[in-house]
Amino acid sequence: MHAIGVDIGGTKIAVGVVDEDGRILAQVRRETVADDVADIDRAIADAVTELTKEHEVGAIGLAAAGFVSPDRRGVNFAPNIAWREYPLAAKVAALIDSDLPIVVENDANAAGWAEFRFGAGRAATDMIMLTVGTGLGGAVVVGGELVRGKWGVGAEVGHMRVVPNGHYCGCGHEGCWEQYASGSALVRDAQHAAVANPKRAARLLELAGGSAEQIRGPQITRAAKEGDELGIELLAKLGRWIGEGAASVAALLDPEIFVIGGGVGAAGELLLGPVRRGYEAQLSALGHRPVAQIELAQHGNEAGIVGAADLARR
Amino acid sequence: MHAIGVDIGGTKIAVGVVDEDGRILAQVRRETVADDVADIDRAIADAVTELTKEHEVGAIGLAAAGFVSPDRRGVNFAPNIAWREYPLAAKVAALIDSDLPIVVENDANAAGWAEFRFGAGRAATDMIMLTVGTGLGGAVVVGGELVRGKWGVGAEVGHMRVVPNGHYCGCGHEGCWEQYASGSALVRDAQHAAVANPKRAARLLELAGGSAEQIRGPQITRAAKEGDELGIELLAKLGRWIGEGAASVAALLDPEIFVIGGGVGAAGELLLGPVRRGYEAQLSALGHRPVAQIELAQHGNEAGIVGAADLARR
Amino acid sequence: MHAIGVDIGGTKIAVGVVDEDGRILAQVRRETVADDVADIDRAIADAVTELTKEHEVGAIGLAAAGFVSPDRRGVNFAPNIAWREYPLAAKVAALIDSDLPIVVENDANAAGWAEFRFGAGRAATDMIMLTVGTGLGGAVVVGGELVRGKWGVGAEVGHMRVVPNGHYCGCGHEGCWEQYASGSALVRDAQHAAVANPKRAARLLELAGGSAEQIRGPQITRAAKEGDELGIELLAKLGRWIGEGAASVAALLDPEIFVIGGGVGAAGELLLGPVRRGYEAQLSALGHRPVAQIELAQHGNEAGIVGAADLARR
Amino acid sequence: MHAIGVDIGGTKIAVGVVDEDGRILAQVRRETVADDVADIDRAIADAVTELTKEHEVGAIGLAAAGFVSPDRRGVNFAPNIAWREYPLAAKVAALIDSDLPIVVENDANAAGWAEFRFGAGRAATDMIMLTVGTGLGGAVVVGGELVRGKWGVGAEVGHMRVVPNGHYCGCGHEGCWEQYASGSALVRDAQHAAVANPKRAARLLELAGGSAEQIRGPQITRAAKEGDELGIELLAKLGRWIGEGAASVAALLDPEIFVIGGGVGAAGELLLGPVRRGYEAQLSALGHRPVAQIELAQHGNEAGIVGAADLARR
Repeated sequence: MHAIGVDIGGTKIAVGVVDEDGRILAQVRRETVADDVADIDRAIADAVTELTKEHEVGAIGLAAAGFVSPDRRGVNFAPNIAWREYPLAAKVAALIDSDLPIVVENDANAAGWAEFRFGAGRAATDMIMLTVGTGLGGAVVVGGELVRGKWGVGAEVGHMRVVPNGHYCGCGHEGCWEQYASGSALVRDAQHAAVANPKRAARLLELAGGSAEQIRGPQITRAAKEGDELGIELLAKLGRWIGEGAASVAALLDPEIFVIGGGVGAAGELLLGPVRRGYEAQLSALGHRPVAQIELAQHGNEAGIVGAADLARR
Repeated sequence: MHAIGVDIGGTKIAVGVVDEDGRILAQVRRETVADDVADIDRAIADAVTELTKEHEVGAIGLAAAGFVSPDRRGVNFAPNIAWREYPLAAKVAALIDSDLPIVVENDANAAGWAEFRFGAGRAATDMIMLTVGTGLGGAVVVGGELVRGKWGVGAEVGHMRVVPNGHYCGCGHEGCWEQYASGSALVRDAQHAAVANPKRAARLLELAGGSAEQIRGPQITRAAKEGDELGIELLAKLGRWIGEGAASVAALLDPEIFVIGGGVGAAGELLLGPVRRGYEAQLSALGHRPVAQIELAQHGNEAGIVGAADLARR
Repeated sequence: MHAIGVDIGGTKIAVGVVDEDGRILAQVRRETVADDVADIDRAIADAVTELTKEHEVGAIGLAAAGFVSPDRRGVNFAPNIAWREYPLAAKVAALIDSDLPIVVENDANAAGWAEFRFGAGRAATDMIMLTVGTGLGGAVVVGGELVRGKWGVGAEVGHMRVVPNGHYCGCGHEGCWEQYASGSALVRDAQHAAVANPKRAARLLELAGGSAEQIRGPQITRAAKEGDELGIELLAKLGRWIGEGAASVAALLDPEIFVIGGGVGAAGELLLGPVRRGYEAQLSALGHRPVAQIELAQHGNEAGIVGAADLARR
Repeated sequence: MHAIGVDIGGTKIAVGVVDEDGRILAQVRRETVADDVADIDRAIADAVTELTKEHEVGAIGLAAAGFVSPDRRGVNFAPNIAWREYPLAAKVAALIDSDLPIVVENDANAAGWAEFRFGAGRAATDMIMLTVGTGLGGAVVVGGELVRGKWGVGAEVGHMRVVPNGHYCGCGHEGCWEQYASGSALVRDAQHAAVANPKRAARLLELAGGSAEQIRGPQITRAAKEGDELGIELLAKLGRWIGEGAASVAALLDPEIFVIGGGVGAAGELLLGPVRRGYEAQLSALGHRPVAQIELAQHGNEAGIVGAADLARR
């Protein structure tokens, strides 16, 4: 059975028809207005209607960046879109002339599911996805099942606390994992390093046009690949925090694989090596248990579409 | 169907017949020798044989303190008993003249399962058990299923790291949760407080016969109940660490209830109040999600028997 | 002997004639331009010339917010004024028609010295000044002498690290004391608390016109004085960090008094109580040593003038 | 003028005649009983009497491991000798037939002073001594003067807190610097590493006869010098903690040199390199200030004698 997956961003949506092997057979995109939830409903309905003219599908999955209701029908809260206790599935259903089942999934869960079913985790039964981007998102699969939590807000891995009294987080707390294990953390560390020791940061500053504030992730990766000591160290620090935090997750869930997604994957071994070493260094009962694999994600931006579609048809 | 549950300790085993409501209908105990694994096998078989003379049972569950193999047939490693890659179920089966199915479960998982099925968590589908004793053990139930992890070593909550470079742990690492959220941590904190400020610890020292090294948990609870400021503060500190760590677990698993087991439960609200406040203070997305319940366990020492029996018959 | 003290800020300077008891006999102010160091020189010279017409003085002390050269003649670096290896004393000397001795002092050192000679520390020989403002500044007096350090950059107490991997600091490092023990830290903590738990922050939000970002220090003090639980807790947290850090300083320097300056002093006992408790709780060898006094500063904004003048005439 | 220096240990005392260049001209040793303070008095007096028969001296300095009274006449408290508010100088004076001036100094201060006057710090005016042994002791010299603190208990550098909620310390607190920057910390870290990952610790375990508990400092140094990865890493970790803590001290005191004493100095650059890198990495205002030297101590066990003698004649 084919299914439609919808990845809803703040200003655009991507909609695709996904087959049973996780391939996208057709895809359309629409621009939207984040403040106008009815506009988003219409854009989704419009795109779905267009695709269903040419493709027979059995279900629709909507991937949304927010807290999805436990019944998978609505979004209770979203940080970047004006959804508040919003019955998204019903709203979209009312606009499309069909009785296709529609489910809503958290976008990180959908992406993780794509990786579990058709990507780096496809041979596994127990997987943790860690998406290292602006923040640190994730997905948890236990015994082949996606773990959503009692109220649908599980897998917020980025808000596990890893340093008491640590870095401030936008969530209002201190020391959240995503303040150490995200692309934003990498950039901020680089910017601070350039203030604390400009000489050591010479290459990074050069790549950033001379301004610490202009340092961005790809420059750090580039410098590191050139052999720049600070760049390598910054990626290693990021990797260490990812790996050490993963060891805490493993203490709880004992997964067989961690899949690392997000743009930092471009750093390859410069990141993965430290992740693995950090993981092993902090893993409890090493020697009395197998060590989980740690691999890069195989899907990119389209993981949300694929995962949402696949979750919808289950 | 009735089942037999066996709780295997280092020097004694307890064996009981458990009905479908989690009641123990009959129970026997045997002394054992921790270094002699064959002796333990025989003691189990002997007790089982005795009980099955009078009770019809459909399965046997063995609760073992150690890393249980993923097929639930053996123990790969135990810290206090000489099991190493030990096929416990087969060994016991060979000694009892029956083809009853036998499964092995981690003891903390068994105890947590008893609480989930017949105790504080019986109304829940997603529960975390935290057993605050010498160490910090736990059990994880997601969607009504016990989470054992890919290799059977999940739910080692006590070894999540909560303080980088924090207290040394017997596992070889630093900053493990159980070094802050266990009865041992409580006692050690009290002993240190008595060194740092003997005047403030006057009542605790009095109860301990004048020696900081003799301070024990029940004395701290007693002092706190009498109104002793330091005793109250120590329990509050313990509670805070439990609650704050629970908030990290909730970020990952979004459970509906945490069940707190172990002897420290005797402190009642002096402990539970701080646990709840610590949890709420660190819970991510408070206000956008329900707050999980935090309750004391309802089963005591027999939880292992009950849970092992119930898991065996599933 | 009377002396002139000059407190040089980014946009204005204050110049006063100070007698031997630390009283300001006359004072003038001038506006300046932070980027124009020659303009600052002229403003100082102009004010000095005006005051010396009516007052006989024996020395001039210039208090500057920056790294003062070890010979006390210039400023090597200043964060907010365009001084870089700047021979401030010689520049000013060239503009005033006199051969009065001129010395340059760090402004926090000057303010601390005023407190030591004429304020809360006047009975002491060993004092630590902690100025809790935007940042955390300080001054160190050992055996009656101001400690400037080998290269004149001592007493930067705010940049002692108190939390590894802790809050980012403008200096490029993490976990600096001033990120926990300053007015800025107080405000930031309040703003975060209002995000993490708006209900608890209701009174603070009300005082701030409904916006977490608008919360300021005086509102926190006001709420706390009204009995607001969160306000009291925030001041207590600030106080605890001040006191606990002070205990580390005491391990090194064993002073007899800590003097707390800066606007947060307005909170009175709501701050001082927690400072003292935090200090005592962390003080090494309590019971085998006296506990240093912790008192509020007695001088306000004019401490820089008074201290600079007094240091100049020594 | 020659002077006598006495280094008083728990079970033996060493007494020497020291010339003005810090050379020991003659030396005697006596066994003592730690619990019997009168016995120690007699042993000192006896040794002094013996030495003064052949040497003309002008003063006697007693180096004691404990809290020395501010008037430098007695010991208020000692952890390992039964001195409590003990008038040591007067007791010794009463037993020797002379009116030589006698002063008592803390032993770490005495050793640091020897290094300042005749060792690695002899060219400096502002020096911090860090003695990395069982614990972390120290001495502070500011502007050519030893800093004893108001009540004589300054320079307890080992009890500055570097990790909130960090390792327990014998002083009753958590996170003291000496729990991270001492020979004991090195050994404990090695022992834990051998538990957490025995494979990586193979060489260390081999040198320790197979038992993690038998690992000692010299084995770690030896393994590191052979190129053992874990040994190198353990020394680097120790060095990093020394250097990073030193940067906090520098924020306060801006010294021109840190002198590192204690047995770990045998590791040479394997330790010193990481100390310097850790220092520089955490030094505030790097680039706007000179970087202090970090050097090994030049005196060994006799530093206490030399320093006590020299302090006595000042």
